[in-house]
Amino acid sequence: MTPTGRAASSATPHARLSLNQATIKYASLPRALDAAVQAGYQSIGLWREPIAEVGLATAARLVHESGLRVSSLCRGGFFTATDPAARRLSIDDNRRALDEAEAIGAPALVLVVGGLPEGSRDLVGARAAVAEALAELAPHAASVGVTLAVEPLHPMYASDRAVVSTLGQALDLAEPFDPAIVGVVVDTFHVWWDPSLEADVARAGAAGRIASYQVCDWKTPLPLDVLLARHYPGDGVIDFGRITEAVLSTGYDGDIEVEIFNQAIWDDDVDTVAARVADAFASAVVPHLGSAVAGGR
Amino acid sequence: MTPTGRAASSATPHARLSLNQATIKYASLPRALDAAVQAGYQSIGLWREPIAEVGLATAARLVHESGLRVSSLCRGGFFTATDPAARRLSIDDNRRALDEAEAIGAPALVLVVGGLPEGSRDLVGARAAVAEALAELAPHAASVGVTLAVEPLHPMYASDRAVVSTLGQALDLAEPFDPAIVGVVVDTFHVWWDPSLEADVARAGAAGRIASYQVCDWKTPLPLDVLLARHYPGDGVIDFGRITEAVLSTGYDGDIEVEIFNQAIWDDDVDTVAARVADAFASAVVPHLGSAVAGGR
Repeated sequence: MTPTGRAASSATPHARLSLNQATIKYASLPRALDAAVQAGYQSIGLWREPIAEVGLATAARLVHESGLRVSSLCRGGFFTATDPAARRLSIDDNRRALDEAEAIGAPALVLVVGGLPEGSRDLVGARAAVAEALAELAPHAASVGVTLAVEPLHPMYASDRAVVSTLGQALDLAEPFDPAIVGVVVDTFHVWWDPSLEADVARAGAAGRIASYQVCDWKTPLPLDVLLARHYPGDGVIDFGRITEAVLSTGYDGDIEVEIFNQAIWDDDVDTVAARVADAFASAVVPHLGSAVAGGR
Repeated sequence: MTPTGRAASSATPHARLSLNQATIKYASLPRALDAAVQAGYQSIGLWREPIAEVGLATAARLVHESGLRVSSLCRGGFFTATDPAARRLSIDDNRRALDEAEAIGAPALVLVVGGLPEGSRDLVGARAAVAEALAELAPHAASVGVTLAVEPLHPMYASDRAVVSTLGQALDLAEPFDPAIVGVVVDTFHVWWDPSLEADVARAGAAGRIASYQVCDWKTPLPLDVLLARHYPGDGVIDFGRITEAVLSTGYDGDIEVEIFNQAIWDDDVDTVAARVADAFASAVVPHLGSAVAGGR
């Protein structure tokens, strides 16, 4: 048992482990920071909504006082609207998200690029819109020193969440830009099935484009809301050894986030979840980290 | 209204349209053949279970008497068992399926290759088992003149149905074999999201490996049982023009199957479904067939 009598954790969180706040969705920013610090984390991944609740200046101060690194800010994106006004709003909102990332010290803004526009079947057009949005945002990303991190989402989300479905496709989109400005997210849940994964991870690493590595597990049957299908590492079928070794062998030295959308986990006690994440990471991922140095580039 | 007073259809089924029996799952083989003939189809895709119900000799006679072409037999596969006895049963069963395909005049046996074995995380090993099974079955496929048609399934089925998730991966598996012996299935539902689709369809066509082209639509939200997420062409977000033109431009001259797993469609009247399939195909697919010649290679 921990001194506070809260949920027991047998594992001190690994130095490179970051608790993504989506895993404890109902916690406010102060509560999330406190949970991470109390559980012994050194890093946290933040979301924009809890930051907005307290205001950006307060959020930046709280993060600074916590002593935690911020591994990423979630999330920007949603670039595929065809209506010019909606498109403009999206670009402006992403500029603000980049400013917020800078303010809280997040090295990367995670981008969920958006699905097909309502009523559209134009996948090619939607993908072109993503490329255009990256080009529009790149100068601002460069000026604030935050990487636009394109996240390929599992193909089951291609129609309504993200028309970028593979790591290779994300790398093609990133290709025209400096790796410090446009990178990619490798999230095991989204890419574990991809027969090109090792090759594409190697390509991403060689280009210095892995802006974030996120781990959680895949298990079937899927729940009715497939957005909530994610599990603690080790509770499903993903081979974290194979993927983690591929990512680390490229020289990736950043934090590793655990980001889980799962109603049962959201309904659980925040400190219990923080401890369980550390335990799951310790057994499913840490054995594959070798002697890799601690995160926090 | 048709002369029989059954469900109205404004469209005579296109000469290349094949009614896959899975779309009318609860119909016996005689009932399915009758529905296809009455609705004016020239081709049908059959499944092994309804054939087994009447016996292979009777099935072959009924098919012959119907005058219908058989576009494919579903299905073989499930190659990923690690237990040697289970693996042997699977190979033997696939040999019998090839014999059945020959007996009913199906040019191809559709293969759903199987998911991860129970308790396994070894995706690489499961994929290797598929390659080995194809090599074991290839001589028998050659001897009966039936193509082993590897079907890449949507990545959301990678863990429990098919560790072959992309057309490119299916083509890599087929590569060592003569295209008459190992081909691939292009099913819009499974591959519509793939950013490499046009390139891989071109590759498949150039190698003469498209053994079957199947169409149905994708729509979200997905039902709780994601196996039943398929819809009539035109009811979802798939751009049948783009994909159909890519397939046909390779010279593909076979039948085009409509295969829909959907509880509401299964619960509907068989003749109504046969008519609706023809109508949906007429509006969503036929405009993209150009002056392509009729099927029935």
